[in-house]
Amino acid sequence: MKITFVTGSQNKYDEAKQIISDLERQDLDLVEVQGIDPKPIIAHKFEEAKKVLQGNLVVEDISLYFESLGGLPGPLIKWFMKTIGNDGLVKITESFDNPKATAKCIVGLSKEDGTLEYFEGSIDGYIVKPRGENGFGWDPIFQPAGWDKTFAEMTQEEKNEISMRRIAFQKLKDYLK
Amino acid sequence: MKITFVTGSQNKYDEAKQIISDLERQDLDLVEVQGIDPKPIIAHKFEEAKKVLQGNLVVEDISLYFESLGGLPGPLIKWFMKTIGNDGLVKITESFDNPKATAKCIVGLSKEDGTLEYFEGSIDGYIVKPRGENGFGWDPIFQPAGWDKTFAEMTQEEKNEISMRRIAFQKLKDYLK
Repeated sequence: MKITFVTGSQNKYDEAKQIISDLERQDLDLVEVQGIDPKPIIAHKFEEAKKVLQGNLVVEDISLYFESLGGLPGPLIKWFMKTIGNDGLVKITESFDNPKATAKCIVGLSKEDGTLEYFEGSIDGYIVKPRGENGFGWDPIFQPAGWDKTFAEMTQEEKNEISMRRIAFQKLKDYLK
Repeated sequence: MKITFVTGSQNKYDEAKQIISDLERQDLDLVEVQGIDPKPIIAHKFEEAKKVLQGNLVVEDISLYFESLGGLPGPLIKWFMKTIGNDGLVKITESFDNPKATAKCIVGLSKEDGTLEYFEGSIDGYIVKPRGENGFGWDPIFQPAGWDKTFAEMTQEEKNEISMRRIAFQKLKDYLK
């Protein structure tokens, strides 16, 4: 079963391909609707993707939830990154005196028969001052619970063993079997 | 020239109608794409609106920019309101020790001939602890520069004399003459 991951991000594709080795890619940035619930965002991405692509399509949405912000940044994390960045995110959690955060990856599979499946990966952790040089995005400020390293201090292999993306794509892989 | 304001918000329509008295309304919530720049959001709203409506259409986008957050919340303000609300917004500005904010209203006019015009209203002010019972949304925490009242402490007439929505719809009104 040929599966195409529709994403504008080489980093995300690289991580996903380590889990599903024959995953193909379409380099396409899809319009994202506003919201703090990922599933409607994914459903809308598929509407856009299916205008130009056929077959079994995969899209993902990454969200980062701060316990102190009740739903934020959520899927809007990319706009927080573009504006206040990691330093600003740390400052917010410090001011709310609550570093707890949950990182989620929701993977959607739109099948040729028209049906839609979701696979969710979630990992709890803490927002910390930036540490580490690996990874991308907010990896330097996210330290998974039970670890003394941030994502950016882990090797790619370590991160990819435990990440929210790993969990979600592993569920997709199991489903495809 | 018949103009239809497409908005799901009765409050916004009421304020706009005080400026353009023969403004009509279509009660329709349009999909908003993610972003911190209002114009693409408005352009996408028109794409959606024109699937079901004809004629001269007006949509608006309200954004609230915190100087300390370099672009946030911007058009994403509604999601900040739904999650952390006014108290959370105040807490963020306090932690960044910078209460300066700018409220913007961008009004888009999509004309029957297919052209698109934008009208911008902007007002500088400060984020303060909530005061006042009038208005809606973040009116209680926005105090325009040069005033000792928040929007929510003003009468509807006072707010509507000076607000970002007033400035933008007044420009639209002048354009229509």
